[in-house]
Amino acid sequence: MSCTDRKVIRCRAAVAWEAGKPLVIEEVEVAPPQAMEVRLKVLYTALCHTDVYFWEAKGQTPVFPRIFGHEAAGIVESVGEGVTELKPGDHVLPVFTGECKECRHCKSEESNMCDLLRINTDRGVMLNDGKSRFSINGKPIYHFVGTSTFSEYTVVHVGCLAKINPAAPLDKVCILSCGVSTGLGATLNVAKPPKGSTVAIFGLGAVGLSAAEGARIAGASRIIGVDLNPKRFHQAKMFGVTEFVNPKDYDKPVQEVIAEMTDGGVDRSVECTGNINAMISAFECVHDGWGVAVLVGVPNKDDAFKSHPMNFLNERTLKGTFFGNYKPRTDLPSVVEMYLKKELELEKFITHEVTLSEINKAFDYMLNGESIRCIIRMD
Amino acid sequence: MSCTDRKVIRCRAAVAWEAGKPLVIEEVEVAPPQAMEVRLKVLYTALCHTDVYFWEAKGQTPVFPRIFGHEAAGIVESVGEGVTELKPGDHVLPVFTGECKECRHCKSEESNMCDLLRINTDRGVMLNDGKSRFSINGKPIYHFVGTSTFSEYTVVHVGCLAKINPAAPLDKVCILSCGVSTGLGATLNVAKPPKGSTVAIFGLGAVGLSAAEGARIAGASRIIGVDLNPKRFHQAKMFGVTEFVNPKDYDKPVQEVIAEMTDGGVDRSVECTGNINAMISAFECVHDGWGVAVLVGVPNKDDAFKSHPMNFLNERTLKGTFFGNYKPRTDLPSVVEMYLKKELELEKFITHEVTLSEINKAFDYMLNGESIRCIIRMD
Ligand SMILES: NC(=O)c1ccc[n+]([C@@H]2O[C@H](COP(=O)([O-])OP(=O)(O)OC[C@H]3O[C@@H](n4cnc5c(N)ncnc54)[C@H](O)[C@@H]3O)[C@@H](O)[C@H]2O)c1
Ligand SMILES: NC(=O)c1ccc[n+]([C@@H]2O[C@H](COP(=O)([O-])OP(=O)(O)OC[C@H]3O[C@@H](n4cnc5c(N)ncnc54)[C@H](O)[C@@H]3O)[C@@H](O)[C@H]2O)c1
Ligand SMILES: [Zn+2]
Ligand SMILES: [Zn+2]
Ligand SMILES: [Zn+2]
Ligand SMILES: [Zn+2]
Repeated sequence: MSCTDRKVIRCRAAVAWEAGKPLVIEEVEVAPPQAMEVRLKVLYTALCHTDVYFWEAKGQTPVFPRIFGHEAAGIVESVGEGVTELKPGDHVLPVFTGECKECRHCKSEESNMCDLLRINTDRGVMLNDGKSRFSINGKPIYHFVGTSTFSEYTVVHVGCLAKINPAAPLDKVCILSCGVSTGLGATLNVAKPPKGSTVAIFGLGAVGLSAAEGARIAGASRIIGVDLNPKRFHQAKMFGVTEFVNPKDYDKPVQEVIAEMTDGGVDRSVECTGNINAMISAFECVHDGWGVAVLVGVPNKDDAFKSHPMNFLNERTLKGTFFGNYKPRTDLPSVVEMYLKKELELEKFITHEVTLSEINKAFDYMLNGESIRCIIRMD
Repeated sequence: MSCTDRKVIRCRAAVAWEAGKPLVIEEVEVAPPQAMEVRLKVLYTALCHTDVYFWEAKGQTPVFPRIFGHEAAGIVESVGEGVTELKPGDHVLPVFTGECKECRHCKSEESNMCDLLRINTDRGVMLNDGKSRFSINGKPIYHFVGTSTFSEYTVVHVGCLAKINPAAPLDKVCILSCGVSTGLGATLNVAKPPKGSTVAIFGLGAVGLSAAEGARIAGASRIIGVDLNPKRFHQAKMFGVTEFVNPKDYDKPVQEVIAEMTDGGVDRSVECTGNINAMISAFECVHDGWGVAVLVGVPNKDDAFKSHPMNFLNERTLKGTFFGNYKPRTDLPSVVEMYLKKELELEKFITHEVTLSEINKAFDYMLNGESIRCIIRMD
C-alpha cells in the first residue's frame, strides 16, 4: 500500500466549467477507488476530437462541470476491493470503453462492445455508486467516458485499464488509448488488406492517418487518401499515403474517380470522416467480387446510409468497427509491443507538446487543424 | 468422336415464342459446338423462378423466340476446338454464370463473378460468333443465360460447365445448377454460422430453404424462418427451420420481434426474398458485435438499401452473394460430393416431376406456389 492509499488525494486538474469555455486548472479532490476501481497517476494525456466535441456540447447532453480527457498513460496508485489484476506501480492505458470479461460480448471472440463498460458519453459518474470521485469543496465534478485524464490523478474501472509493458515510453504510447488504435485496428483487424492490395482512406485526420499506418504495416501497395481539405495531403505522405483525391476537384462522385484509378475499385476502404456521403462513397468505391469497406466515423443522429442493394449483391462487404475491434485489456498490450518492436510508428502522430497549465493551447492547435496529436505533460 | 459430332442435331425443345404464352414443343436444329463450346445431351432440367421471370418479361428486355432453362444435368455429346477439360460422355451441370479461369475475378480466391462469363440475361447468343446455335427452318431461336436446357441438346461455353462425379444421380443433382447452390452457399460460404448459432432466413422459397439446409448442415441451434406466406411454414419444418415469424402478425418491425426472441439479435441472417424491406430487416435483426447478414434476393431496379450507419458501427456486417459464392467449375463438384456423402439432402426439394411435353405444368406448379422444384425429364 502506498502512502496515499485509501485517502483523498488533492491534485491539479483541468476543469471544464461550461460548454465551450477555456478549461481552468483547479485543485481537485480525488476520492479513493471503490470496488473494482483503480486510482492512477496520469503522466501524459493527449487531446482527441471527442473531448472537443463534448466540451463544445453542440447537440450533446451538456454535463458540466466535467473533467475531460481519455487518451492517456499512467501508473496505478492504488486499487479498490476486488481488483486482482493490477497493483500499485503497474503501467496502464485507460480506455473510454471497457472489457468486463464476463458478458456475451467479452466472451465472443469477435466483439469488443462490452455490455457493462461500453462507452457512455452521457454518464458523468462511476458505476459502483453512481457518484463522482472528483470534487472541489464538496461539489462534484463529473467524469467523462470513465477516464477523465485531464487530472493528475483519476479513478477508472479496472475493466477500462490495459496493463502494458513497463518498458514502453508513456509519452508515446499514451496515444494508443483512442484514435490511433481505432484507425489502426479498423485496417488491421477489420478491413484486413492482403499484402500488395489497394486501400482507400477517407478522411486524413488522426484516425484516418492511423488507418493508413495500418495499411502500410499490412503491406498495401497503393494507399489512396481522400479528404476535402488539401492541407491534409502533405502530412499524409509521411504516413505512407501514395495518392490523393480531393472530391472537390471532380464533378463526378469520388467513387467513380477511384474506380477509374484502380481498374474497377479498391480492394479495401476505411472511412474515417463521420460524413455520410464519405461513408457511401467508401462503400461504393470497393471492387465487386471481393471489396471490403469499413466505417469508423461517428455519424449524425439523422444520417441514413443509402446504396443500391446490387452493390452488395455484387459481392461487396460493409462493416463497421468500434475502437478498431480491439478488446482493451486483452489486445492493447500487444499494440504497445508492436510499437516497441518498431513495426508501428507513433512519433509522427505527435506534432505538439504542452504542459497541463497550457492545456487550452492543445484545444487551439486542434481547432486550427494544426495538430495531429498534442501531448499534455502532467508534471 | 460420337456419330453426331460436328453435325447438326435435330431434337425436341420447349420454345417460348412470346412473353407469357405457354411453351411449345418444337423440333429444333442444334448446331455443333464452336471454339470453347460444348454440346450436351440434357437428361433432366428443373424450373426456377428466373425462367418464369424472363418468360413473363415484365420490365425485362423481351428476347423471343427463346429456349429457357438453366437448372439441369447432362452428358457431353461433343466438344469444340480448344476444349481440353471435357470429353464426350462426361457428366456435367450447366450453370448460368461461368468461370473462365483467366480473369481477375476467377484468379481471386474470393470472387466468382467472372468478367467473361458472368450472367447476362439480355444476351441470346453465343460469345464466339454472336449467333445462336438453335434454329427452326433457319430462323434463330435465342439462348437464355448461356444454358437453354429446355432442349434435348444444347450448346454451352465450356466455362459454364461443371464436370461432376458420374456416380451422381442426374435427376437429383440437376437442381444444384442454380437455386439450391445459391442458398446453400449463401449460408455455408458467406454467412458461415458457427456451430450452435442462431440463424434467421428471410423468404422460404427454394433459395431460402436451401439457405436453411446450409444452416442445418453448419449445426445452427435455432433456425428462424421469416415469410409473409404462412403456407411456407409447414414445408420449411422439413428443412430444419425451428421457429416461424410472419411479419404480418406484428405491428412492429420484424427485426424488433427477432431481437426480442433472441436476446438482442440473431448471429447470422440470410435474405432470400428480393424484397427491399426484408433486406433491411435481415440486416437490422443481427446482433451487434458479431452479426453478419447476407443478401441473396435480386432487388428491383429502383430499390435503395437504407439503414442508420450506427447499425454498422455497432459491428454488424452486411454482405451480398451471387450463386452462393461458388465458382461453378471449381466448387460445384464438391457440392455434388456433399450430396453423395449424404451430408446434403436434395430429395426434399423435389416436389414434382413431369416430362418435357408436360413442361407447362411445371410453370403452373410454380405459379401456384405448389412446388419447390419440379424436375422435367427429357426422355
Ligand atoms: N469508431 C470509433 O471507435 C471512433 C473512435 C475515435 C474517433 N472516431 C471517429 O472517427 C472520425 C475521424 O476522427 P478524426 O479525429 O480523425 O477527425 P478529423 O476531423 O481530424 O478528420 C476527419 C477528416 O475527414 C475529412 N472529411 C470530412 N468530410 C469528408 C468527406 N465528405 N470526404 C472526404 N473527407 C472528408 C475532414 O476534412 C478531416 O480532415 C470521427 O468521426 C470520429 O468521431 C471513431
Ligand atoms: N443471388 C443469386 O445468385 C440468386 C440466384 C437465384 C435466385 N436468387 C433470388 O433469390 C430470391 C428467392 O428466390 P426463390 O426462388 O426462393 O423465390 P420464391 O418467390 O420462391 O421465394 C421468396 C419468398 O419470399 C417471401 N417474401 C417476399 N417478401 C417478403 C418479405 N418482405 N418478408 C418475408 N418474406 C417475404 C415470399 O412469400 C416467398 O415465399 C429471388 O429474389 C431470386 O431472384 C438469387
Ligand atoms: Zn463485458
Ligand atoms: Zn478519442
Ligand atoms: Zn473469369
Ligand atoms: Zn435459377
